[in-house]
Amino acid sequence: AQESTVEHDAGDKGEFRHYMLKEIYEQPQAIANTLEGRLFNGQLNLEALGDLSGIEQVQIIACGTSYHAGMTARYWIEGLAGIACNVEIASEFRYRKSVVRPNSLLVTISQSGETADTLAALRLAKELGFSKTLTVCNVPGSSLVRESDMALMTRAGAEIGVASTKAFTTQLVALLLLTAALGRGRGMDSATEKRLTDALTHLPGLIDKALGMNADIQQLAERFAEKHHALFLGRGDQYPIAMEGALKLKEISYIHAEAYAAGELKHGPLALIDAEMPIVVVAPHNDLVEKLKSNIEEVRARGGELFVFAGEAAAIEPQSNMVVLPMPACDDIIAPVLYTLPLQLLSYHVAVIKGTDVDQPRNLAKSVTVE
Amino acid sequence: AQESTVEHDAGDKGEFRHYMLKEIYEQPQAIANTLEGRLFNGQLNLEALGDLSGIEQVQIIACGTSYHAGMTARYWIEGLAGIACNVEIASEFRYRKSVVRPNSLLVTISQSGETADTLAALRLAKELGFSKTLTVCNVPGSSLVRESDMALMTRAGAEIGVASTKAFTTQLVALLLLTAALGRGRGMDSATEKRLTDALTHLPGLIDKALGMNADIQQLAERFAEKHHALFLGRGDQYPIAMEGALKLKEISYIHAEAYAAGELKHGPLALIDAEMPIVVVAPHNDLVEKLKSNIEEVRARGGELFVFAGEAAAIEPQSNMVVLPMPACDDIIAPVLYTLPLQLLSYHVAVIKGTDVDQPRNLAKSVTVE
Repeated sequence: AQESTVEHDAGDKGEFRHYMLKEIYEQPQAIANTLEGRLFNGQLNLEALGDLSGIEQVQIIACGTSYHAGMTARYWIEGLAGIACNVEIASEFRYRKSVVRPNSLLVTISQSGETADTLAALRLAKELGFSKTLTVCNVPGSSLVRESDMALMTRAGAEIGVASTKAFTTQLVALLLLTAALGRGRGMDSATEKRLTDALTHLPGLIDKALGMNADIQQLAERFAEKHHALFLGRGDQYPIAMEGALKLKEISYIHAEAYAAGELKHGPLALIDAEMPIVVVAPHNDLVEKLKSNIEEVRARGGELFVFAGEAAAIEPQSNMVVLPMPACDDIIAPVLYTLPLQLLSYHVAVIKGTDVDQPRNLAKSVTVE
Repeated sequence: AQESTVEHDAGDKGEFRHYMLKEIYEQPQAIANTLEGRLFNGQLNLEALGDLSGIEQVQIIACGTSYHAGMTARYWIEGLAGIACNVEIASEFRYRKSVVRPNSLLVTISQSGETADTLAALRLAKELGFSKTLTVCNVPGSSLVRESDMALMTRAGAEIGVASTKAFTTQLVALLLLTAALGRGRGMDSATEKRLTDALTHLPGLIDKALGMNADIQQLAERFAEKHHALFLGRGDQYPIAMEGALKLKEISYIHAEAYAAGELKHGPLALIDAEMPIVVVAPHNDLVEKLKSNIEEVRARGGELFVFAGEAAAIEPQSNMVVLPMPACDDIIAPVLYTLPLQLLSYHVAVIKGTDVDQPRNLAKSVTVE
């Protein structure tokens, strides 16, 4: 198992009011650490993962925030590496009779490496005949690391806040590295690998730029603090990011936020929309943005108040009942990582305004080490 | 394509106040129609589906309620037939680059057969190289029926209420028939086929019995009408049923209901639980019921008001803050169909109390024939 050599200071909150905010701001450095030695001068160095050329299927297993990282990775692994990929909640996978396809790689994702259901799923998977097991994990020496054939450490450093932030974005970066490793010699051509490595090279700087939105988002948060509901919308690889944004708001602000794939709006959730239901949209400039614009119009026409994080080239204009927050331009590949940032900041500031215990939200533990 | 020969009266509401209630009560007959000629004297007659013995993978594509039917079928197709199965929202599948595994059957599910995203996904799938395409559909001669290699008609009869009820349960029954057809000569032994056919034979009578809960559920609905939120919990093949229950409540009562796989509670949604958040649990007596009981305790300990639909053998006792509604005993295989019934009745009565337009909820159309 390949473990981190990067040193971190898990110490105090320093200048920050909460660990969560400190950890949000640590993300440019945390991501640089994830990439260290693995991306150098535009070249990927993933030999430590061993030979993945025989892998024909990937099964990802995780819980909570890590499950959202896995859902995002599915778009990458199928779309960029050309390898079939499934993702499942650990507590579901471990208790049903599933079918293991030949030459399957099992990938577990967990910050702590001790998540009870994920660990039990790994143990079950070994009996079921997966070819190899790999964990994307943040804690060296943890059970998942010890019991997996391979470990891709996220190197996020200690995460104290219960609501995961830098652990999630470094998981995404590790999963992009895994996508590249899987894609080599399979569905990924060298132009795509170059695009991916370029995008990753620019990522820490882009994250830093997104942190510059903090003051605007703090102001925006005032408009959420009195709300009891929120809907988060995304399409494609931004759908799991919308899910993660909704989960953050749930966890620390106790607002009932729910995410939908925007194309599902007409199949039910549109009935919920009224002035009391703010809608957050993640809308990078990509192939889906025109579809997303018509989803935005559907919601606006029904009185919903909209908050849209939009790529500038997407040309989404502010209107009545609609705030548009421009996002730095970026390659589609890394957009899910970048668009996570403002959603983290939004949930943080809403929680601070509401006066909840940001770092220790009620009823939740940092690592779910029991079922 | 095999089409229905069963005649239905799509006429007026008769003695019922709303089409939705009429359609809920039609389910014993609708399901008997779905089974007619396909299950006879305990024998399955599925030759009309042709030879499915070469199928190694199933990819299900659907939207909304039909997506929940597909999610349920996944548990059956992998667990009973031993064939690998994926399920995806049509609007996601059609806009991403996916990997088609060899010898894959594409299954679309749609009441109308005209759902825009599902139809577009079918057309895309044909280009992507699926071996065969099959639709589970309620409307003979619809676009999905015409453009698929095979059609398994649900024969639910005309459904007028926008919130789907009998279309959903007949989809489930059709998907159980499909599971048996796929399983023959593959992962399903004759004992399991017998168990499945016995369970289906008893199903219309069990549904009739569940309708006898109507008065109790009407009374229960009073306790929901003032709520703004609800959480629906299930595990395994009851997780999609919880999702469908939450969707019904959203669609017609405009209560923000959300479903979770119960094992995910500790990974976030537990933070939302307080006295204002009623929790609905579907808890048949099966292998998972002990796990579910500890989930119930977690929620109860945090002040949540619980409404548990429970198999009698599950021995879940009413306590403070917890109502238990006993369900007829049934085979696990058909439990997802049976447990749908009380959730339909619950959403119906809550909507009636709230005075919403039950058959024509705001913002929604019966068939989503545009993107």
